[in-house]
Amino acid sequence: MKKFLNSPDTVLADALAGLAAAHPDLSVDLDQRIITRAHGPHRAKVGLISGGGSGHEPLHGGFVGAGMLDAACPGEVFTSPVPDQILAATRAADRGAGVVHIVKNYTGDVMNFQMAAELAGDEGIAVRTVLVDDDVAVQDSTYTAGRRGTGATVFVEKIAGAHAEEGADLDGVAEIARRVNAASRSFAVALTACTTPASGRPGFDLPDDEIEVGVGIHGEPGRRREKLAGAKEIVATAMDAILSDQPLDPADRTIVMVNGLGGTPLLELYLVFGEVSAVLADKGITVARTLVGNYVTSLEMAGVSITVCRADEQMLALWDAPVRTPALRWGC
Amino acid sequence: MKKFLNSPDTVLADALAGLAAAHPDLSVDLDQRIITRAHGPHRAKVGLISGGGSGHEPLHGGFVGAGMLDAACPGEVFTSPVPDQILAATRAADRGAGVVHIVKNYTGDVMNFQMAAELAGDEGIAVRTVLVDDDVAVQDSTYTAGRRGTGATVFVEKIAGAHAEEGADLDGVAEIARRVNAASRSFAVALTACTTPASGRPGFDLPDDEIEVGVGIHGEPGRRREKLAGAKEIVATAMDAILSDQPLDPADRTIVMVNGLGGTPLLELYLVFGEVSAVLADKGITVARTLVGNYVTSLEMAGVSITVCRADEQMLALWDAPVRTPALRWGC
Repeated sequence: MKKFLNSPDTVLADALAGLAAAHPDLSVDLDQRIITRAHGPHRAKVGLISGGGSGHEPLHGGFVGAGMLDAACPGEVFTSPVPDQILAATRAADRGAGVVHIVKNYTGDVMNFQMAAELAGDEGIAVRTVLVDDDVAVQDSTYTAGRRGTGATVFVEKIAGAHAEEGADLDGVAEIARRVNAASRSFAVALTACTTPASGRPGFDLPDDEIEVGVGIHGEPGRRREKLAGAKEIVATAMDAILSDQPLDPADRTIVMVNGLGGTPLLELYLVFGEVSAVLADKGITVARTLVGNYVTSLEMAGVSITVCRADEQMLALWDAPVRTPALRWGC
Repeated sequence: MKKFLNSPDTVLADALAGLAAAHPDLSVDLDQRIITRAHGPHRAKVGLISGGGSGHEPLHGGFVGAGMLDAACPGEVFTSPVPDQILAATRAADRGAGVVHIVKNYTGDVMNFQMAAELAGDEGIAVRTVLVDDDVAVQDSTYTAGRRGTGATVFVEKIAGAHAEEGADLDGVAEIARRVNAASRSFAVALTACTTPASGRPGFDLPDDEIEVGVGIHGEPGRRREKLAGAKEIVATAMDAILSDQPLDPADRTIVMVNGLGGTPLLELYLVFGEVSAVLADKGITVARTLVGNYVTSLEMAGVSITVCRADEQMLALWDAPVRTPALRWGC
């Protein structure tokens, strides 16, 4: 295993220390392992938190800041945060208007967030839970009953975060978060596996001439193995899966993300985006907003995920609203 | 070779098409292969351009925009842009106040930018050339006579770009660009090699338990091979090289970048930044500004570079000035 680390046991602690040093706008509680905004908000607003296993950076800590999350709680690599930790993040995000939990659909995350929500409820904090399950590749998978939550998490956190920032109430923030998830579909393809520091070995074996079609963000199996094909064919497969699950009309406007899984160069991500854009243009579907880069990663996995959200006017306006986080920043 | 591409021959053209589709703020001339700002500037200002081989994205195209570059001219992967292309970028950036060429110190780049500068001069465009040569690892190397230009390019482009935006004249912009380069030092370590689409093979062989200490951004050899060590030791080696080349006082304030070479997860980059920050804190040196992420990459190489700039008040103020590009964005 070739990684920059001191010990597999201290990866998360060491990385959080670096995150704290790198971003004065974040406050990192190294004991409780929660990341919050260093400066406010100082007024009542609905709190937004998310969390999950580490190894998907910048998700979620990189999305803490004005216009997006109030707090994040990272677990160990590919391991859910524990209920007490989620409860601490919930408390930190609570300004008296309630807290929304954004939870990617993995069994451990769902269970631990549910326990934390109950504990928070006992303390008088109103919690709404929004499940993200946008990955169309498989119905059930390792770690998951039902669809996996992947790229749409970024869209949910950005848009619901902006709605909370403009003063929406708890049910309003939860409602738009659910709508964004329901309007989003993702599909991922891996060229290589990734290696967790704890295991020291690649999560799966993939021959030199094969790709994993429909891979999950922990290296979970997808739909099938295929021979490595050209980018145009790979994108066609992914877009077919996305668009057959949620057909789009020419009148639809979309937010499209081409996301690197960690080990794929930006040059290739742009190349993939060009193919995605061509597929949508061919169908007359408008790409209204775009993200190309590493946003929901799987350590150093070489691969790409594509997420398409059918966005209404409100979603687009909230997408454009100011955001100031380490990984997404515009308008302020 | 496992990559998302259609053909090794069309990688750059296909990626530029994707870049154009992804960023409405950029104007991409697919024939001349130059990237300019889609909207202005509409007033006289000093133009700033840079370019070099592709494969280092977001450098340079991702730094085109208000407050930074006016134009970029990407060559084929790891290959200098040609003089006519550089000339086209120079013309596009010229608003009558002259153009600064920011050139990383590689033999091909230096030669082709010089030819373009002469051609531009014949057309009456005043050009100043600023050479970036911040890599302390080796004196001469493959591709280079003298030190290689690496991470400091981001600092030079940001700070000189802000100075041009505030109306500095041609010599003033070139002068601060040279000062930033002179105040910056970089050092890189690779865990793996990268593979260019044209060659289809890794640029060098590196045993499973060894690292290349002082690697260049095209995989050029560094100072030596070492056994893989802990992050703390690797950072100590790199910081020792940087700080012995340019000793810093406790009174100094620095801009520090921990840059991923393309295949290293952000989790590890933060971990490395934590170690860098600890080394500087130990010496009482202030880290005034930070960047952690993939800014000057080497395709999918796993590795990290560290750049430290001793920044004066003017540099810090220009660093903080608004910037609006695909890869760096704040204050606007």
